[in-house]
Amino acid sequence: MDDLFLHTLQDIYYAENKILKSLPEMIETASDKQLKSGLQSHLGETKGHVQRLEQVFQMLGKKAKAVNCPAIDGIIEEAEEVTGEVEDKDVLDAAIIAAGQAVEHYEITRYGSLIAWAKRLGRSDVAQVLEQTLKEEKAADKKLTDIAESKVNLKAA
Amino acid sequence: MDDLFLHTLQDIYYAENKILKSLPEMIETASDKQLKSGLQSHLGETKGHVQRLEQVFQMLGKKAKAVNCPAIDGIIEEAEEVTGEVEDKDVLDAAIIAAGQAVEHYEITRYGSLIAWAKRLGRSDVAQVLEQTLKEEKAADKKLTDIAESKVNLKAA
Repeated sequence: MDDLFLHTLQDIYYAENKILKSLPEMIETASDKQLKSGLQSHLGETKGHVQRLEQVFQMLGKKAKAVNCPAIDGIIEEAEEVTGEVEDKDVLDAAIIAAGQAVEHYEITRYGSLIAWAKRLGRSDVAQVLEQTLKEEKAADKKLTDIAESKVNLKAA
Repeated sequence: MDDLFLHTLQDIYYAENKILKSLPEMIETASDKQLKSGLQSHLGETKGHVQRLEQVFQMLGKKAKAVNCPAIDGIIEEAEEVTGEVEDKDVLDAAIIAAGQAVEHYEITRYGSLIAWAKRLGRSDVAQVLEQTLKEEKAADKKLTDIAESKVNLKAA
């Protein structure tokens, strides 16, 4: 179980770093101001998530290390593929939101598992650190839904 | 927007069919009886999801078609990789649950986008069909959480 926990931690560490690299392009591609600024503030949060993961590695007495994560690679490859095909800027915003939410949901499920496992392994201190990130991922997902529902989908349709 | 909707529909059609192919191995690998039977009943539901998607293609006057979906390919590749590395059967069950939840969350986010777009495109009839599937995906995710929390994680730790 310790090994599974550590592997999943290394997996999400890879994922967060990959997201950090791909978010700037998403921000540049987006047109809607609220969407742009929402993604921008999530970029700042993501830097914090990477730091929190490094803190967790330290709490466990392990060196921060990333392992390849085919899931996030696939999710981001698909995001780039789909957004690359759309020409209309409002539809593009809708596609960016959907892609962003796929990323958020991947993170939500991984942090959910990690938190449950940390508690079972008697590391509620670690769970507490990861819960802060999970809260921010859920809020980011909700914010994207709000932007989509309040205007982007309307304009795109 | 119609194109984005159709592309995403073809994407999730590919994903559901891929899940249909990989679930039997997950079921065989699982040890916990409740987990096995939960995955088995989700296999039955997944067949229904494929049929519902075919119904939606028909409602739109389109032929059912799948497009490659690197996201689900990546999520399933990662699931096979991780479960292939675990030897202890209780930890393996915990890994299978986490992998299953990553799949569920991908589907939840995609159906969520499709439903929002269908409504905006004036196709609440299509949205209604997809909502039945979304409800089942959310229930499947919750069931996996319950199995993990009630016993699998305890045994694994």
